[in-house]
Amino acid sequence: MGATGLDPLIRLLARLPGLGPRSARRLALHLATRREEVLEPLVRALQETARGIRRCGLCGNLDTADPCAVCGDERRDRGMICVVADVAGLWALERAAAHRGTYHVLGGVLSALDGIGPEDLAIERLLRRVAEDRVGEVILALPSTVDGQTTAHYLAERLAGRDVTVSGLARGVPVGGDLDYLDDGTLNAALSDRRPM
Amino acid sequence: MGATGLDPLIRLLARLPGLGPRSARRLALHLATRREEVLEPLVRALQETARGIRRCGLCGNLDTADPCAVCGDERRDRGMICVVADVAGLWALERAAAHRGTYHVLGGVLSALDGIGPEDLAIERLLRRVAEDRVGEVILALPSTVDGQTTAHYLAERLAGRDVTVSGLARGVPVGGDLDYLDDGTLNAALSDRRPM
Repeated sequence: MGATGLDPLIRLLARLPGLGPRSARRLALHLATRREEVLEPLVRALQETARGIRRCGLCGNLDTADPCAVCGDERRDRGMICVVADVAGLWALERAAAHRGTYHVLGGVLSALDGIGPEDLAIERLLRRVAEDRVGEVILALPSTVDGQTTAHYLAERLAGRDVTVSGLARGVPVGGDLDYLDDGTLNAALSDRRPM
Repeated sequence: MGATGLDPLIRLLARLPGLGPRSARRLALHLATRREEVLEPLVRALQETARGIRRCGLCGNLDTADPCAVCGDERRDRGMICVVADVAGLWALERAAAHRGTYHVLGGVLSALDGIGPEDLAIERLLRRVAEDRVGEVILALPSTVDGQTTAHYLAERLAGRDVTVSGLARGVPVGGDLDYLDDGTLNAALSDRRPM
């Protein structure tokens, strides 16, 4: 009862990640009371996204351009591919301006539980890029989970024997991290991977 | 760098209530990777809202119908108006199914600080409804803030002398509320408004 007209929108909003019934109602009210300033620009931006967004044919990044902004950038080192599980990981590394090469989005990680095998990930395309682009280094920036590390080992095996260096992200204490707040796994990794000062 | 194509959408999303840069990025990725299942239905629902939503000419509620679902419902008691500051308050009372009469949305509360005077709120329209619809009771369901209570007193004064009962929401301990967690103002109100058992 009451808000019948906005209910379909509220139901859709409540299913989005990070939103629940309460924040969806608040958001729907915000949009409905600010049609010209907020709602209509948002509709246009979402339509642009629906129309324009595509997967980069090279790396699998999401962008309105194909090749994407990274792959299309002449200054990026094509000989150095950073392999990420998903686009969120790619964006995180881009925000940190941490990598001067290009990327390869796998589209997930191997998972026996979820039934995700090598053929479900963009692995063949990675091997083809490594062969065709004379890639010198593949950096495996995969999640520090069991599945992520299984995938990293699988890729390292598949790349073995080719003329390419395979590396993984360093594990250890985060910058600004207090030892007292770190989990045991990270502390163990930081100790066993200790480096000379 | 990197996610150029989605940046305009992310910037808009990050300005919505309850979202920040991080959740906006997550949401944009969710939408961009689920075009048909999530993005396009959302665009349609937002367009429907932009096209269809209007203010009820009677009470000020937001709905696709005018009069709104509440005012258009024959079973609601037109002789009993619950005055709320905004549509969010109306929806909260409707969710609780707490009120069997109709509503009146003021569009805010009086505020010297924000320069909101009686002429900025739907007060004249309320007085007209009270006179024309032979309203027996006006319930002031305004926020328990200084401005909200100032507005309630102002409305009570404007309605004095008319043949209408003016009441306010009871103040006290919330249902399920533990005294130890309540603020001093609520405890004082609960004590001074104590009732015989």
